[in-house]
Amino acid sequence: MSEPPRPEVLPEAVPKVVIVGAGFAGLYAAKALRRAPLEVLLIDQNNFHTFQPLLYQVATSGLEMGDIAHGVRQIFHRQRNVRFRRGRAVGVDWERKRVILADGESESFDALILGAGAVYSDFGVPGVLEHAWFLKDLAEAANLRSHILQRFERASAEPELIATGLLTFVIVGGGPTGVEMAGALVELFGGPLRKDFPELEHERVRVVLLEMTDTLLAAFGERSRRYAGAVLEGRGVELRFGATVAALRPGEVELASGEVIRSETLLWAAGVRGHPLAEALGLELTRGQRIRVEADLSLPGRPYAYVAGDLAGATDEAGLLYPQVAQVAIQQGKHAARQILRRLRNEPTEGFRYRDLGVMAIIGRNAGVAELSRALGGFKLRGFLGWLGWLFIHLVYLPGHRNRVVAFVNWAYNYLTFDRHVRLIAFMRPSAAAPESPDARADETRTTVR
Amino acid sequence: MSEPPRPEVLPEAVPKVVIVGAGFAGLYAAKALRRAPLEVLLIDQNNFHTFQPLLYQVATSGLEMGDIAHGVRQIFHRQRNVRFRRGRAVGVDWERKRVILADGESESFDALILGAGAVYSDFGVPGVLEHAWFLKDLAEAANLRSHILQRFERASAEPELIATGLLTFVIVGGGPTGVEMAGALVELFGGPLRKDFPELEHERVRVVLLEMTDTLLAAFGERSRRYAGAVLEGRGVELRFGATVAALRPGEVELASGEVIRSETLLWAAGVRGHPLAEALGLELTRGQRIRVEADLSLPGRPYAYVAGDLAGATDEAGLLYPQVAQVAIQQGKHAARQILRRLRNEPTEGFRYRDLGVMAIIGRNAGVAELSRALGGFKLRGFLGWLGWLFIHLVYLPGHRNRVVAFVNWAYNYLTFDRHVRLIAFMRPSAAAPESPDARADETRTTVR
Repeated sequence: MSEPPRPEVLPEAVPKVVIVGAGFAGLYAAKALRRAPLEVLLIDQNNFHTFQPLLYQVATSGLEMGDIAHGVRQIFHRQRNVRFRRGRAVGVDWERKRVILADGESESFDALILGAGAVYSDFGVPGVLEHAWFLKDLAEAANLRSHILQRFERASAEPELIATGLLTFVIVGGGPTGVEMAGALVELFGGPLRKDFPELEHERVRVVLLEMTDTLLAAFGERSRRYAGAVLEGRGVELRFGATVAALRPGEVELASGEVIRSETLLWAAGVRGHPLAEALGLELTRGQRIRVEADLSLPGRPYAYVAGDLAGATDEAGLLYPQVAQVAIQQGKHAARQILRRLRNEPTEGFRYRDLGVMAIIGRNAGVAELSRALGGFKLRGFLGWLGWLFIHLVYLPGHRNRVVAFVNWAYNYLTFDRHVRLIAFMRPSAAAPESPDARADETRTTVR
Repeated sequence: MSEPPRPEVLPEAVPKVVIVGAGFAGLYAAKALRRAPLEVLLIDQNNFHTFQPLLYQVATSGLEMGDIAHGVRQIFHRQRNVRFRRGRAVGVDWERKRVILADGESESFDALILGAGAVYSDFGVPGVLEHAWFLKDLAEAANLRSHILQRFERASAEPELIATGLLTFVIVGGGPTGVEMAGALVELFGGPLRKDFPELEHERVRVVLLEMTDTLLAAFGERSRRYAGAVLEGRGVELRFGATVAALRPGEVELASGEVIRSETLLWAAGVRGHPLAEALGLELTRGQRIRVEADLSLPGRPYAYVAGDLAGATDEAGLLYPQVAQVAIQQGKHAARQILRRLRNEPTEGFRYRDLGVMAIIGRNAGVAELSRALGGFKLRGFLGWLGWLFIHLVYLPGHRNRVVAFVNWAYNYLTFDRHVRLIAFMRPSAAAPESPDARADETRTTVR
């Protein structure tokens, strides 16, 4: 990508960079354009950034929704060259260089960064999209929390339903999300919910973690993996290796082995694919429906357009797709922004290089695993130190000073009291379906008893 | 109510008291039965108590939902004789002494306390139930916040809609709720949203308070009322006295004078009536659809059943219905519980007497009015002291230590920074419509983009 910039990227007026998505990639791209003589427009269907690594804590009553979300406009209060537009990007008019929004409006751009992220992939398993839970957005996490608490309320009113799997919680996928969720669930069930529901037979509550391969946390070293498995089993999680889901039906999970587990709650943490926007754009895709990009993250033949984060099909030296994690998104967002600045200065663009910091996952109270990359010394932490390191890193990256303070206070409270404050059963409407007009709202979002 | 208790109220087994509603009346009734040899069952459609006096702060981005709600089971962790059942009471089988729930199940009782509260009354004005907002439950308050923030997002994307009332906010009713809401709205608009939306013409934002009579805060003294009006006008609220709403239509409010105000946001704070459960029970009602009760708050001819709080049609010495405020509900809840204990001991019941502590309302930053009753010294506070008194009293009554700390921290943060943290646009589903089965949920509560 060292060809000279095309003239239309540098018009006489201030060039306009449109960034689609206010996730890690979009947020860090916009921040990297802080001092640039550019107009930046950030578009997202939500007016807030969601700190996805902590969604599992919202789903398990550890944190409030507001603790892991931060208003996009607030994040950029002091960055004068950023504007925000709440909307859902559904396409791009490449001829006229406009991003098309779901409401039919559009926004022109001189340069573009696509950071729409990923969605869960069902890998073709029947029933998953209809009946499984996913941890990809705030409303879903809050609803999963309400759904879990509602199972317990129901079991209290009708204990005979426990026999049909009312209190069986199945997690598919032994990666960080599955492990963190399993660990947080047994803590929630064994402590706060035991106190809340003294009338229930708590030994009948089950947390089952299904993993297709023979190990948890495949991205980690042997000792971390064994440690994670041992801690989860010690805390009461049923680990099932070599277990593949064949189908989901209301109230039951069928495994490839033919075994059926009765459960009303299946969390699908088995993997993600690129956001449907990728297909809608008609661009060339890689495995996992990610958009194929040049080494500098630009679109082939469209040097003014970049892709960053989970949506980008960028590959490392070995030709492998980068993992869809926050650190890659952050670094790619910054990289894309820097390439736009280089083109503005008529400098050749640079290939993206991932600076691997390592991997970490939390298993539960006092138990975490962290493996720093060799560049950072190659330390491996397990147990209390791994847990502490995880807390520290997540506090540092959580956007907003107030959120950091509140999350810290909540964690300290949870840790010291063994309690979980957030136990309201309150269902959210999906963000994509938020009513645009007040009258669309009237029928759906209000109490029926009046 | 001095007849001897009927034998069936005191069976050999532990008598069971069912309390319908976990509002102030139900909560304080259950607490008053703390040391009693009784089984107490509290029924509510939500698994949390809502601190209604602070709903307006949720609607205006001052507090999070979780700050003013507290899990019922958590409140009674240490009170062993209380059980909770999440459900909606829809009737009573007086013959078999059972409360009937919406799911078809029922619960037997020996004594009953009805504390289902109040709902908004439209006073027959067409369009109000369809198009107005009400501040009566948590989901509605959170949705009103999202709706308000969404008007601003929309105005940012399509400023031409401001001319059709997009940024005009109308409040009907100059009682405490209307005054508090108007004051909080101008603060939200003048501070945080001015910073969030530098692109908007903020002088076009309007807050209109419509009051039928010629004064705000009718329950207060002359000086407090004048003060409240002066403060609100000084901060930019348009006060309209003698203004009656004739009809609501999508996007407009028609006044009795024929004048039409274009607005997409009308908050109806004009008054309440008893919960529909009152009519469903087929009992004799007073004005405002409240249940007629004896002097001791029991139902005529049913000395084992009591009504407390907004639903109770109790009258003072002058024959006037008590105001539907928290203090009356708290005192009536305790009173009803005490009468059940008296009957248990074969003592005659006592008439309810309200101990009036006074009235208070907050108008905004540094501005409150508080008028203590003569029994408490008859002090009248205005301005900073009235504001401080209001904050103090509300912190004292907010249930849950953690909620008190968090609310205090949030208030201190809001006060010192002039900011409001909570600005997520995230719509809730109405509590009454929370899905009972996971599959009812699947279609409705999840993101459509996947």
